[in-house]
Amino acid sequence: MGAEIDLSAIVADIAAEMAAAPDRGRPADYIPPLAAIDPNRFGIAVIEMDGTCHLAGDADEAFSIQSISKVFALTLALGHVGDQLWRRVGVEPSGSAFNSIVQLEAEQGIPRNPFINAGAIVVADILLGRHEPREAIGETLRFVRALAGDDTIVIDRAVAEAELATGHRNAALANYMRSFGNIHHPAERTLGVYFHQCALAMSCRQLALAGRYLMAAGANPGTGRQVVSRLRARRINALMMTCGHYDGSGEFAFRVGLPGKSGVGGGILAVAPGRASVAVWSPGLNARGNSQLGTLALERLVQRTGWSAFEAG
Amino acid sequence: MGAEIDLSAIVADIAAEMAAAPDRGRPADYIPPLAAIDPNRFGIAVIEMDGTCHLAGDADEAFSIQSISKVFALTLALGHVGDQLWRRVGVEPSGSAFNSIVQLEAEQGIPRNPFINAGAIVVADILLGRHEPREAIGETLRFVRALAGDDTIVIDRAVAEAELATGHRNAALANYMRSFGNIHHPAERTLGVYFHQCALAMSCRQLALAGRYLMAAGANPGTGRQVVSRLRARRINALMMTCGHYDGSGEFAFRVGLPGKSGVGGGILAVAPGRASVAVWSPGLNARGNSQLGTLALERLVQRTGWSAFEAG
Amino acid sequence: MGAEIDLSAIVADIAAEMAAAPDRGRPADYIPPLAAIDPNRFGIAVIEMDGTCHLAGDADEAFSIQSISKVFALTLALGHVGDQLWRRVGVEPSGSAFNSIVQLEAEQGIPRNPFINAGAIVVADILLGRHEPREAIGETLRFVRALAGDDTIVIDRAVAEAELATGHRNAALANYMRSFGNIHHPAERTLGVYFHQCALAMSCRQLALAGRYLMAAGANPGTGRQVVSRLRARRINALMMTCGHYDGSGEFAFRVGLPGKSGVGGGILAVAPGRASVAVWSPGLNARGNSQLGTLALERLVQRTGWSAFEAG
Amino acid sequence: MGAEIDLSAIVADIAAEMAAAPDRGRPADYIPPLAAIDPNRFGIAVIEMDGTCHLAGDADEAFSIQSISKVFALTLALGHVGDQLWRRVGVEPSGSAFNSIVQLEAEQGIPRNPFINAGAIVVADILLGRHEPREAIGETLRFVRALAGDDTIVIDRAVAEAELATGHRNAALANYMRSFGNIHHPAERTLGVYFHQCALAMSCRQLALAGRYLMAAGANPGTGRQVVSRLRARRINALMMTCGHYDGSGEFAFRVGLPGKSGVGGGILAVAPGRASVAVWSPGLNARGNSQLGTLALERLVQRTGWSAFEAG
Repeated sequence: MGAEIDLSAIVADIAAEMAAAPDRGRPADYIPPLAAIDPNRFGIAVIEMDGTCHLAGDADEAFSIQSISKVFALTLALGHVGDQLWRRVGVEPSGSAFNSIVQLEAEQGIPRNPFINAGAIVVADILLGRHEPREAIGETLRFVRALAGDDTIVIDRAVAEAELATGHRNAALANYMRSFGNIHHPAERTLGVYFHQCALAMSCRQLALAGRYLMAAGANPGTGRQVVSRLRARRINALMMTCGHYDGSGEFAFRVGLPGKSGVGGGILAVAPGRASVAVWSPGLNARGNSQLGTLALERLVQRTGWSAFEAG
Repeated sequence: MGAEIDLSAIVADIAAEMAAAPDRGRPADYIPPLAAIDPNRFGIAVIEMDGTCHLAGDADEAFSIQSISKVFALTLALGHVGDQLWRRVGVEPSGSAFNSIVQLEAEQGIPRNPFINAGAIVVADILLGRHEPREAIGETLRFVRALAGDDTIVIDRAVAEAELATGHRNAALANYMRSFGNIHHPAERTLGVYFHQCALAMSCRQLALAGRYLMAAGANPGTGRQVVSRLRARRINALMMTCGHYDGSGEFAFRVGLPGKSGVGGGILAVAPGRASVAVWSPGLNARGNSQLGTLALERLVQRTGWSAFEAG
Repeated sequence: MGAEIDLSAIVADIAAEMAAAPDRGRPADYIPPLAAIDPNRFGIAVIEMDGTCHLAGDADEAFSIQSISKVFALTLALGHVGDQLWRRVGVEPSGSAFNSIVQLEAEQGIPRNPFINAGAIVVADILLGRHEPREAIGETLRFVRALAGDDTIVIDRAVAEAELATGHRNAALANYMRSFGNIHHPAERTLGVYFHQCALAMSCRQLALAGRYLMAAGANPGTGRQVVSRLRARRINALMMTCGHYDGSGEFAFRVGLPGKSGVGGGILAVAPGRASVAVWSPGLNARGNSQLGTLALERLVQRTGWSAFEAG
Repeated sequence: MGAEIDLSAIVADIAAEMAAAPDRGRPADYIPPLAAIDPNRFGIAVIEMDGTCHLAGDADEAFSIQSISKVFALTLALGHVGDQLWRRVGVEPSGSAFNSIVQLEAEQGIPRNPFINAGAIVVADILLGRHEPREAIGETLRFVRALAGDDTIVIDRAVAEAELATGHRNAALANYMRSFGNIHHPAERTLGVYFHQCALAMSCRQLALAGRYLMAAGANPGTGRQVVSRLRARRINALMMTCGHYDGSGEFAFRVGLPGKSGVGGGILAVAPGRASVAVWSPGLNARGNSQLGTLALERLVQRTGWSAFEAG
């Protein structure tokens, strides 16, 4: 099937369709700098195994990747502590919204998975380790730059500070897990790491580049370097499939059928193993907090390429 | 990678390993006829796209497929009412045990997905439609026989009757959803359909044969007949991935990485799109109610074949 | 304080105020015969320790007492099985609506208290004991007639049958508890007892008469006969205070400050220990399912009489 | 009945019985200074309307009143903002443990009542108002000293600091409510007020003296000064009855039948309107976190005096 696909044409078509889409969702309004983004933006980047890159729309405009950073932070933390990480975070979909605290009460402070906020805060606590927050943030930035092969990637400090000032619910999650012993540092230190990681500003192109190791059994196809083991790459993809879109994860698997991770900035990173690393961006969100047009664009991409994880290639 | 695989050897190895496994889980004890099954049983059947069949262990011994039947019932019901079905059942993992009633209260009688009991009871209610329970049960049996190409498949009425007599929690679920208008028939009629469907007795071979349409984009590769559309086959696989193992679905995706559906009889049907339809059976269950050795066997099968949905073939 | 009170004037005033009240709430609509009741009805009966009876409005019109019957059923069941009853039902407010099923899942089928539906269904199951439903229903009717000293009290079978036909949520509760072993009879038999008890038709006068033992340390002041022990009368009053109005119990204690039990038919039985047994009725309900004007009338009665349990007489 | 009671003898008997009680519960262990208290301590103080004071055991030994302080803080806050307070805090029993966060998620950051931790933190936030934490703490201390007529009452700063250092769950509650806008100050400032208030050290005698206004329709019988209106005194008593013992409130009403408020330091303040203000103390707690012997002592006091709110005097 792959031979007949004209990916560049497909990507251009999708961008054109998305430009004309009437229902664009609503940008997140609880982080002031994000609320100001123009909802008409749309970008897409598809990078194939051989490095061929298909871009359309605002594919080179940086946006706040927010929760997509949880994929990179998890990868880094697994490198630090290995499978011990799973003693502090589960691997099950939560069935709840991204910031729910209910599940933590019943399950003694162990978050369901590393992609809900509580789980990602535990991962940030692991990355903090014995370091200063500044050091842990620097390490994450260097890691993402290396993955993307692009040293121009930065953290948007205005976004990080806005979140620190208003992130009371995340402070609640961190303190709550600390009461169970599952956060080891004072909440403000761990959250410093977490909010800066979420404030990474990347374009679709940079994001798709950074995600290449997930389509390639854990190796960065640009450098040939093994980022994580093949087994871990598979498992990270599995988590993206079952837990990557909060309480909309089932719907994303149903409609799109690829491992994916969304952020409230409107971005989604999706992985077609053996085929492509894909990033889309459109700021308007659907009712579950995932990019409205980003999801639709990926659904169409899979329809036209047959790249679903649930069907033979 | 596929060229180098000696599937028959792998299947035989796994069966030998499972025969020696010390921790075999515990058979379900709440359905009396199931509690009596010998926990030392283990069977596996792998059927490739071209029909090649690899069997080992007790692959030809019939067992109670229980919740695996929900896959076939969903397929049949989608044929009857199409996507209207999704008005009455969701597509999200529940984050809860198979028989939880909590989620139904918050979500007004709409079950999270068709593979938890509540969702499958709604599907049974749809299959009942304007028919008598006996007719709906007969239709399901004929459908499964046709999928497997085997008219010797039967329903174990002793199991169905044991469940009718003790299935108070399912009666609670049905009545509860009826109070929201999401069950249209008296509970005992809908449950009659549901319990008989769960009491289908099939061997691993029969089950893997019946599941072939899910590896082949909706078409039965034995007959060439389209069972469901390509899109629906993909979606059923997606639901099996995110919701097929109750509150152990995330772990199954993490460890095995294939769409799968388990039953408390100890069976699991798993699908490697484009490659194989797989059925395993071992009566002992793990803490989440899924076959202990069945899961382990599938994990090893994927390790040796590279058939994960989260990795290129 | 008591000496200065002109109870008859107070009762008449309240009835006049209630006749003019603009916001009367909404009658329950899920039991057809109840939905047809004129929302302009209001009745009040205050019976003092010495038997003096103050009536106003529709105090002699029979209405469906519904959940108020749970007080009498509890009293009767305590007579049958004593404090063993508390192994099957708790004594804590539920914090939830009258028909919530969530709490039962977390607490293994033990209802929080005997005044939520689940708890009252367990009480009905106890009353059923080894009898036929018909016998248990007859015993309850005779008990209430004896308490009120009025053999004309009847059960409205049209109401009981309407509830049996539509009471799917109560059937869910009964089956759910049965799955935990806390209902001993088939759900339809226990519910038969429960729905008939709820369908008792009584006037305010009859209800206040029947409730006299609760103001008088367990003895019927009309006959002098001890209905329950002094300790049990106190405990039943305590349960009415903390659990008598579902998730509006706190508000009732806050506003009225007397042990009370409401029913969706719009009635409330309230007890001022040592002073009076009071029944009010007005069909319109507030958001929590308790009589809007009945609550307001009791609030005013306590304001003018000083009968609060939370203040010296 | 009152005339025949020899209160001093009753109080002495109860103290003797409690001294011999084998099952004394377990002191709270999560606040280090409290864990060190000798579980053999028991004190009781009963102060009648006329000021007569009956003491026994360790009635003059100061202990950490902890959550009992919520009664005084609520009284003070109602004086500051009046019934507007009820826009930010409910009046219903929670049905949950003292520090549950689940209910807050469903109810948008509005705590069920002012006696669970979340509610008391809102009350502390109100008391903080435009002041510095130091000022608000000072005001609360002066208020309690005035109620008790005893300027020697102090705050145990070691206890307050221990709680600030370990109170991660309360920090979670405060931040969580702040995310809904129901906490107006930074969490650490509001919690500073809250933890100091909880660290009030008082003896049974001082506590019973401070609680006199609740038995006397809102007026301090020692000074004749109206502390709160009669209606508010009644309502505070109502809240103590329905919500004063967390998820053991129903049981306390059932067994004791008086408005009461417990603290994890092992104290309980109970009110017999028109008769007495009572304080008991014993450090060992029962499973619900309420004083084991304190509850038993009050149960016996009510048995022998007939002071139940649910029975005529």
